Amino acid sequence: MNGNSFGKALILTTFGESHGLATGGVLDGFPAGIPVDPLFIQSELNRRRPYNAAFSTTRNEKDRIELLCGIFESKSTGAPIAFIVYNEDARPEDYQELKDLYRPSHADYTWSMKYGHRDHRGGGRASGRETLARVAGGALAKLFLNTCNISVVAQISQIGPLPIQPAVSDPQQLPAEVLAYIEQLKNAGDTTGGIIHGSITGVPPGLGDPVFDKLEADLGKAMLSIPAAKAFEIGSGFSGVSMKGSQHNDPFILREGTIHTTTNFSGGIQGGISNGEEILFRVGFKPVPTLQQEQETLTTSGEKIRFKPRGRHDVCLVPRALPVVEGMAALVIADHLLRARSSRL
Amino acid sequence: MNGNSFGKALILTTFGESHGLATGGVLDGFPAGIPVDPLFIQSELNRRRPYNAAFSTTRNEKDRIELLCGIFESKSTGAPIAFIVYNEDARPEDYQELKDLYRPSHADYTWSMKYGHRDHRGGGRASGRETLARVAGGALAKLFLNTCNISVVAQISQIGPLPIQPAVSDPQQLPAEVLAYIEQLKNAGDTTGGIIHGSITGVPPGLGDPVFDKLEADLGKAMLSIPAAKAFEIGSGFSGVSMKGSQHNDPFILREGTIHTTTNFSGGIQGGISNGEEILFRVGFKPVPTLQQEQETLTTSGEKIRFKPRGRHDVCLVPRALPVVEGMAALVIADHLLRARSSRL
Amino acid sequence: MNGNSFGKALILTTFGESHGLATGGVLDGFPAGIPVDPLFIQSELNRRRPYNAAFSTTRNEKDRIELLCGIFESKSTGAPIAFIVYNEDARPEDYQELKDLYRPSHADYTWSMKYGHRDHRGGGRASGRETLARVAGGALAKLFLNTCNISVVAQISQIGPLPIQPAVSDPQQLPAEVLAYIEQLKNAGDTTGGIIHGSITGVPPGLGDPVFDKLEADLGKAMLSIPAAKAFEIGSGFSGVSMKGSQHNDPFILREGTIHTTTNFSGGIQGGISNGEEILFRVGFKPVPTLQQEQETLTTSGEKIRFKPRGRHDVCLVPRALPVVEGMAALVIADHLLRARSSRL
Amino acid sequence: MNGNSFGKALILTTFGESHGLATGGVLDGFPAGIPVDPLFIQSELNRRRPYNAAFSTTRNEKDRIELLCGIFESKSTGAPIAFIVYNEDARPEDYQELKDLYRPSHADYTWSMKYGHRDHRGGGRASGRETLARVAGGALAKLFLNTCNISVVAQISQIGPLPIQPAVSDPQQLPAEVLAYIEQLKNAGDTTGGIIHGSITGVPPGLGDPVFDKLEADLGKAMLSIPAAKAFEIGSGFSGVSMKGSQHNDPFILREGTIHTTTNFSGGIQGGISNGEEILFRVGFKPVPTLQQEQETLTTSGEKIRFKPRGRHDVCLVPRALPVVEGMAALVIADHLLRARSSRL
Repeated sequence: MNGNSFGKALILTTFGESHGLATGGVLDGFPAGIPVDPLFIQSELNRRRPYNAAFSTTRNEKDRIELLCGIFESKSTGAPIAFIVYNEDARPEDYQELKDLYRPSHADYTWSMKYGHRDHRGGGRASGRETLARVAGGALAKLFLNTCNISVVAQISQIGPLPIQPAVSDPQQLPAEVLAYIEQLKNAGDTTGGIIHGSITGVPPGLGDPVFDKLEADLGKAMLSIPAAKAFEIGSGFSGVSMKGSQHNDPFILREGTIHTTTNFSGGIQGGISNGEEILFRVGFKPVPTLQQEQETLTTSGEKIRFKPRGRHDVCLVPRALPVVEGMAALVIADHLLRARSSRL
Repeated sequence: MNGNSFGKALILTTFGESHGLATGGVLDGFPAGIPVDPLFIQSELNRRRPYNAAFSTTRNEKDRIELLCGIFESKSTGAPIAFIVYNEDARPEDYQELKDLYRPSHADYTWSMKYGHRDHRGGGRASGRETLARVAGGALAKLFLNTCNISVVAQISQIGPLPIQPAVSDPQQLPAEVLAYIEQLKNAGDTTGGIIHGSITGVPPGLGDPVFDKLEADLGKAMLSIPAAKAFEIGSGFSGVSMKGSQHNDPFILREGTIHTTTNFSGGIQGGISNGEEILFRVGFKPVPTLQQEQETLTTSGEKIRFKPRGRHDVCLVPRALPVVEGMAALVIADHLLRARSSRL
Repeated sequence: MNGNSFGKALILTTFGESHGLATGGVLDGFPAGIPVDPLFIQSELNRRRPYNAAFSTTRNEKDRIELLCGIFESKSTGAPIAFIVYNEDARPEDYQELKDLYRPSHADYTWSMKYGHRDHRGGGRASGRETLARVAGGALAKLFLNTCNISVVAQISQIGPLPIQPAVSDPQQLPAEVLAYIEQLKNAGDTTGGIIHGSITGVPPGLGDPVFDKLEADLGKAMLSIPAAKAFEIGSGFSGVSMKGSQHNDPFILREGTIHTTTNFSGGIQGGISNGEEILFRVGFKPVPTLQQEQETLTTSGEKIRFKPRGRHDVCLVPRALPVVEGMAALVIADHLLRARSSRL
Repeated sequence: MNGNSFGKALILTTFGESHGLATGGVLDGFPAGIPVDPLFIQSELNRRRPYNAAFSTTRNEKDRIELLCGIFESKSTGAPIAFIVYNEDARPEDYQELKDLYRPSHADYTWSMKYGHRDHRGGGRASGRETLARVAGGALAKLFLNTCNISVVAQISQIGPLPIQPAVSDPQQLPAEVLAYIEQLKNAGDTTGGIIHGSITGVPPGLGDPVFDKLEADLGKAMLSIPAAKAFEIGSGFSGVSMKGSQHNDPFILREGTIHTTTNFSGGIQGGISNGEEILFRVGFKPVPTLQQEQETLTTSGEKIRFKPRGRHDVCLVPRALPVVEGMAALVIADHLLRARSSRL
């Protein structure tokens, strides 16, 4: 009821606050017998770490993952896999002055209204640091998908107002123009958003449920639960609205004995169920709300105050969100792979 | 695991196929003591019925709802409320010729791949007729929201390529230009999509969960589970991507002793939790896939075939989707109202 | 959260009150392709009907089931199967005088304390009539189990203080001594309880989960959720307490190439998971609380009152509970059959 | 689907194997604002530790708990509370020789049949060591119950064939006769079972749900999920079977303006919902299956083999099960306390 778990057959539960002792998760329902390479999981976490001083916080976290259980002789046992990342560079004192005010467009005010009692240190549970556990859980899901030849790739297709064509999966390959824009924002103490494009290939026809748990509904929820995500499209998305049915329908064709479609406005999903084509989606992220400039806001007792945060923050979190988007997508597909096993006699 | 239920504290389960005996649902977790007016529920269902020969199917269903249980002396008892609508104008014979082919961009192919055994009559369970139970469940949720002074309104803001400004909540008030466009499509046997704009007012701060069950994530899933929905935005949505943080942040202000924001790019939700402002979202719908023109497709054995459906279908389902969008939004808010009761000591 | 659903992969939701319009249920997660014979389901419901004036209520309900959806050409489609039984012989007026008092050892008082608003007619939702939907859902589960050669049999092993050796699965075969005891109670306006013995054969090794959802835990919950059930044992049960480990351990033996045990104190479950032996359990039922004699109790405003119920009631519900016990056991096993499909790569 | 979580509003997820790196859990749904004293949680864990060489294993685990998150300034924040206990005295090598055989009445065979891939070290996930996380989660639940003046007490009422009258909550106070019996079993390398009696006081009327999630059904499941539990009774239990309704009904009485019952055969629950009386239940535990004597069994390839375990084991685990029974009962009541908040408008 508190929403710290995701999935039905494969369930990821995450825990931990930004400046508490540790962040981690438990993945339950992971089938036995899947080879688990801890180095792969660590490498996925490394993709989420601040990689570039231009974009990101200078918080120096190694994000070293410890796999606690559920793995024996390098294979999953069917027992839950728990993992933990100790927070090594927590600096709660940086946040002391934020204790009594509500930062604009953060969760400070809403968390207080919901729970009464708030851990103000770096956003507490509402911090983006929670996504670390999604990346670890998602890395495990990817190991499962590997055994089925399914792969998930996220790419940046826009930063702020700048489209990136072709989209890039490696933030090191962002065009110079984009880097210059980021640099300019950084100097101004400002921030921006972006769009991530997701592609899932190798998904067999038949995943997803026809009513509430349509594959696009579960993917949409997964993406919209990522901090700062504000928009989601599957296939043609908003652009499909303007099309005529005669243009939008994806004609079937037989290719090497298998049914395919010649276009893919459906984005690989029809009636909530995968049709075997590439699953294509887009996620829009708002600008980072923490600015390196003085802002006015209200204290918890309703008085105006000016403040400038001292914490370490990102100009644009979209590059770091790539493994989060991939991880969440992998969890959705893996969950539905298991669920589909129950569909027939 | 089969995804026919929605919600955690307030759970709607739906059942029924387009041309089977009946369609209906069970709403569990509805608190005791809420006044239930069956006429209101019927009036919501009537909004979903084909209302205008220009737009819609001529299937002549009265959609008379029967409330089976859970209500005593005009109030809810805390027991599940089940309801049923018998299908009175089912014409399964209209679909006989579709038995052995896969209609493009329908669920025919994907359902067959998932379940093996398919009810081909009018889309079976994958038909939009299932949304009837969402409207009924949503109407009950609205009765609960009424007691908390929360209201949900959906409006059409675009049909095909034509924006509608201001958006309209009553399809009878669509501009002449739009009606002409629909008429033109109808004559061509073609179809189109549209955008629905949702607004939820009166929501207190504190609803929604901070991690996976963010209010926008649950709203997004709810909307993306509606047949033909392909896109979802909360607040600034995709347009927020291009903004700078200094523009996008919603400044706090004290108004009559209550904390509000001066702008609302957040769409009423911050950190996944409502902040007391209007909740604003948009849903994009693709064109109806059933055309009144001959199309080529594949038979279930993979051979090319030309077909023209005989069933009764809509040119644009967006007007009929208004109560579905409202109903699903009402279910999400009602669910989180109950869930929020557990947040504090 | 209101507990009207049971199961995780195969989910039965029930609805309806004793003297409302109808009682029914929705079974979700039932795999596609299972042959469904409506006559078998009706025959199971008939087993639950009052069969013998000596034991039972004279309420004259035909309990005719209507299968609403989820079945096509005599096979399940993978869509939810909803079913309904209209209450034909409801006599709410029989209960008018109970409106303002709390019958002892019924749910009248506790329901009022929980929900505030109570349907007093024949126990409302708390009536044993709800078990009708369990029998129908259980009958469907049995049809699934049939395809796996699993069978579930319940037998009466005690009525009141009288052990029945050997236990009987057909109430018509109860010993004369027991029938005489029942007759005697009936004449005195009194009631009694009994014990039902359950046996599940053909269960393959590997069903059940090792921690919270142990097979015996789920069976125990299923049985203890049946009205009037007060006790549950698996295998050796309470009698195993007094044994030594050297006596209680079930030695393994190889029989026709398959591992079995020579004794079965475990009751077919070890570590929460089936071991392939017969699953054996016992359920104890308390006496029916409605007596055909005058009793003293309290009114809803706390005053003493004498009353004698006019409704139609059973002297002993144990014979009618046989299909309920079987149905709930079948649902548990069917649920775990589906769940076990996800246990390995 | 893998059953490592328990509860609906308050959800405990546990993880860890006997001889892996760590054991722990995550408690989600714990309301914000509850004072959390880590010393109390540790003291509950200490009750579960081997306390007496006569009864128990000599495994020397300090079971030091680390609370990782969800607590700020000594109060719960509403975020999940994760905790971990590192295994300090794991000796996996003790189990090497068990790798290729199935110990009788353990989970070795069934786990292998379910998952294929087994961690044989000390029972792995199937070990009683998992209950440590239940005790920690249960201790947190008790802290919540404290704020509502609800208390949970478990007492030993039988060891092997020896009844203990009055039952004892402190194992140090077991009668000399019982200690002598245990000593005798220990010398013989044998083991025994026992019965635990549970009492929950201070529960307000109105907890529990009327159909599948009856309070006794959830308590029963909780207890039957504890390793070695084979039997459960609520109130009169099996002994109520033989009573007449006129004896078993609990008459209502008004005491100091509150409705009570004069007897309590119902065990504090009527129609699945608490009635405000003491909740009384009994749990039967089978003998420990690990003997300190040579036994015959089968290898994983089906050959006969004689073995004598070298691990450290208990003669009778009932004394150590006391905090487990209390913890699970506390979790059930706390879960239903939160769930009951949604029952009315």
